[in-house]
Formats: sequence, structure tokens, C-alpha cells
Amino acid sequence: MDKYRFIKAQLAKTNKKNDENYVITRIWNRLDNLDIKFITQQYVIRPDGKYALTDMYFPQLGIHIEIDEGHHKTNIESDKAREEDIVRVTDHEVKRIDVTKGLISIHQQIESIVQEIKERLLKEKDKFVPWDIEKELSPQTYIERGFISLHDNVAFRTIADACNCFGHRYKVWQKGAAPHVYEKDTELWFPKLFPNGTWDNSISEDGIIILERNLDEIENQRYLKGIVDGRIGTRIRPHKRIVFAKVKGPLGDIMYRFKGKYQLNINKSFKTGCIVWERISERIKTYPSR
Amino acid sequence: MDKYRFIKAQLAKTNKKNDENYVITRIWNRLDNLDIKFITQQYVIRPDGKYALTDMYFPQLGIHIEIDEGHHKTNIESDKAREEDIVRVTDHEVKRIDVTKGLISIHQQIESIVQEIKERLLKEKDKFVPWDIEKELSPQTYIERGFISLHDNVAFRTIADACNCFGHRYKVWQKGAAPHVYEKDTELWFPKLFPNGTWDNSISEDGIIILERNLDEIENQRYLKGIVDGRIGTRIRPHKRIVFAKVKGPLGDIMYRFKGKYQLNINKSFKTGCIVWERISERIKTYPSR
Repeated sequence: MDKYRFIKAQLAKTNKKNDENYVITRIWNRLDNLDIKFITQQYVIRPDGKYALTDMYFPQLGIHIEIDEGHHKTNIESDKAREEDIVRVTDHEVKRIDVTKGLISIHQQIESIVQEIKERLLKEKDKFVPWDIEKELSPQTYIERGFISLHDNVAFRTIADACNCFGHRYKVWQKGAAPHVYEKDTELWFPKLFPNGTWDNSISEDGIIILERNLDEIENQRYLKGIVDGRIGTRIRPHKRIVFAKVKGPLGDIMYRFKGKYQLNINKSFKTGCIVWERISERIKTYPSR
Repeated sequence: MDKYRFIKAQLAKTNKKNDENYVITRIWNRLDNLDIKFITQQYVIRPDGKYALTDMYFPQLGIHIEIDEGHHKTNIESDKAREEDIVRVTDHEVKRIDVTKGLISIHQQIESIVQEIKERLLKEKDKFVPWDIEKELSPQTYIERGFISLHDNVAFRTIADACNCFGHRYKVWQKGAAPHVYEKDTELWFPKLFPNGTWDNSISEDGIIILERNLDEIENQRYLKGIVDGRIGTRIRPHKRIVFAKVKGPLGDIMYRFKGKYQLNINKSFKTGCIVWERISERIKTYPSR
């Protein structure tokens, strides 16, 4: 995949949004730096727990740009957001561009943000990781690094790519779970965290809790018991899961986004009748393929 | 009207045309010069006489940008073009951007055009007229200048504005013709140069000949005779006409574009049964209001 195709897909989301298109293309072209990645209409969980869309997002910098068009924009689309790629804005900076004050003012506001970003890149040039579109999608990158962190907003194109960070050598893997080659107490899980057939899985807005539930109550009880027992049929089901949720990625295609490592809470599961998974780590170890 | 609104309207024409949007916004933001006007999807008459659309047009520079997307774009829309704002590309430069070769190549191609334009502006800085969106639409600009030339691609927002370049002080004028205050042998004419009701007016592709014809043959003969006689009823109809054709302007709204000064060709008119107007001047004198 090349950067041009990626950028065009981002800008395509500003179709018929003339203010957004103007501001975003200007910021991009004034920055004029192919090492900086940006995403448009990024779903975020705000510190207040609400879902929203930001107009432009620089994942390497944790900076969001919001365009103020002078009329109220309702960005909260909780239901839709659940299927989408979501980032948490904790510690992120949100910068605003007011487009109601004419071209000269818009250009000045943009220039001030562009200068700030350029200065920050200069200051952080030793730790800044340039945008490499193939590398960021390759399991090898994370195997060499030794870990995957929630902070880095990692997503893979396939379940196999995610599995291969934990000792596998899969070409294809189409099941929703896989064993961890090295950590026998941990399963790799690739859930849809939204209603899907008889399953109604969900993730809390802060990402700390995942609920798994089958709407067929008999099946749900059987599944809950099996998970707690650590075995369903002949299959071992560990009480820890590394989770890559199925999301819509920046090009609109399906991706599997790292959510953290979770552990089964048996008490809460019995109490609520859902399988309750609680996050125990935001950062996990990666392994070369065996 | 402000430049931001004008520019957004131009860029809105690149909706769903991701390559055009990318290249045009980049050229604009790399030029970074609010004195330079641009128009997207400009209807032009090519030197071979064919109508076409160019992707980006700089009227002050006579430069067109064409974006090559690697597949054949059929731009020829003769019928539609007749209702639109049209410029002739004679003496204009057409520059091409090939977007099939990746982002770095696209940026290099754009940078080379941007540098060329910047150098030209430096060289021509004494005669370059900065883009002034109110001034270019104001009759006063052309009255002070003393003339209107085809070369400058002048269009007014109203028939009254056009009339006021020739001695009138109209607030509103809604008829399709008006007398010239100073030149009694000349009429001001604001035709639709496309089929309209029982009238079927047209302009040749090179702009040299205008044909006026009523599809009602009896009415057409009566009108032809009146024009040749120089009088219809009590109204004087001079044999010379300054023509501002009704067109769709860059914001999609109606404008009246200067086409030149024309003279009746009596012989050809009788021979063809159309009223035949032949252009006798590309430049006309303007007058202060009496």
C-alpha cells in the first residue's frame, strides 16, 4: 500500500465538507512532511467518556485538529463508533481552527499549528518514528521491538499477522481465537465488540472491561461454565486473553486493533451472567515465530 | 464575496475526484499566494476548436493544469459547455501532472510548476494584477481602466453592472438589450447563446460569429427585416452590438461574460435566414456614467 492511496482515502472522507477539506489539505501541504501520518474523522473516546469524531488526527504526535464551522456539529455517534477504529484521547492535544473569520485568519491559525508541530519534531527528532506504511502493518516490526503497547495504536490487516507476533507462522488463520505459542495461560482473541448474530459482545468506553455474552441463554450458560472451567470440549480456554478487536481501519477495510491483555473475572461473570474480561495490561510481550 | 467562499466553491468541484483534489489543493497551498486566482474545471475552447474541461486554471497567468490519472478522461462536453463560462486557450500554457507515479513524483512535479509560477511572478511583478475579488466584478474597475478586453475574461454579476460601463447608472436592468449612452450606432446585448424558447442563438467555437434566429419562421423573417432596417416598431436597433453572453460563472451563478463587439452582416443574414453577427473588435472603450 502506498501513502498516496492512504492519504487520498483520508481526504475522501472530507467530500462535501469544504471547510474540513480546505483546512486539512492546507495543514498537510504546509507541513510538507511525508514522515507524518494523519487520519481524518478519527473516532475517539474523550476524557469524559463520550465518543466523538475528530477532523484530523496525527497518531505519532497525539494531536487532533478540530474545525469550528460556527454551527453546532454533533459528533457523538456512539453506536456507529463501536464498529470503528477508536483511539482514546487521554494525554492527547486537541487544537481548533475557527473557519468563520476569513481566509487570512484561517491561514494564520494553520501556520501557528504547523510551526508548533515542526518545532516539536525538531525537539523530538531522536525519538520520532517516521511514518512507514508497510512497517507499521508488519508483525516483524513489533517482534523486533519486543512488545506491543496500547499507546501505539497498533492494528494488523489480518488475524494471522496478529498471531504471528506470538510465535505463530500462520499464512491464514480465520478462527476468532488462537493459542499463544509461548504463554500457555493466555489465548489470542479477535472479537467483534458489537452485536453480531447471537453474540452481543461489548467493550466499555474506557476500554477496561469487555463483556461477552450469547443471547441464547442456554448456550450462554454452557459457554460461561466452560470458560470458567478452562475447557470447552477438548479445547483449553485460558483465563487470560490478548485482545485484537475487529475494527474498520483508516482505509475502511477490516483491521484487528490491539486492545490490551484481559483476565476473566469469575465472580462478576457468575453474578452478571456475562463473561466479564478485565484489562490487566496495556503492554504485552511479542515473540519471534517458533 | 470573500476569497474563501470562492476557493471552497472551486474545490467543491473536486468532490469525489481524489486525485484532482489532492493535486489542486497542494498546488494552491504550495503557491501560498492569496493574490493568485484559480478556477477548477474551466471550460475551454482548445486550439483545435474542441471544448474541454481543464482541471485547474490560473486566469491571471493563462496557465492550465491537467491531471493525468492514467485512464482516458473524456472531457468533451460540447453541449453542456455552451451554457458555461468558457475561455479560449490560444496562447495559454497547459501543464500536466501525472499522478500514477506515487507521492514523491507527484510532489516533485507540483514543486516544479510552483517554482516556475513563482519565478514568473517575480519577473512580471510590475504588470501582474493581484486577485481582487470585489474589484474584478466592479464596473468601476473597467471604467477607470478605459477599456474591456476579451483577453481579460471579464464577466459581471448583473446586466446593470455591464450597462454601467457604458454611461448608464442602472440599479437594475432586466431586458436582454440596452442602448449605449455614448455610441448611438451600438447596442448592448446580453444574449443566451444556446437554444432558449423559440430562440436558437449560437456562437461559433472561435467566438467570431454569433447567429441569432427565431424558430418561428414568420417571426424570424419579421425580426430579420426589422434589424436590417435598424428599427423594430419605435425602437432603434443599431447594426453594432457589444455582447455580454449569459454564462454560468465560477460559483455556479449566472454571469454576463464579455464576448467582443459585433457587426451585422446583412448579406449573410439574408442568405442564411439567420441574423449573422461578426466580431469586429476584441476590445471596447468604457465610459463613466453620465
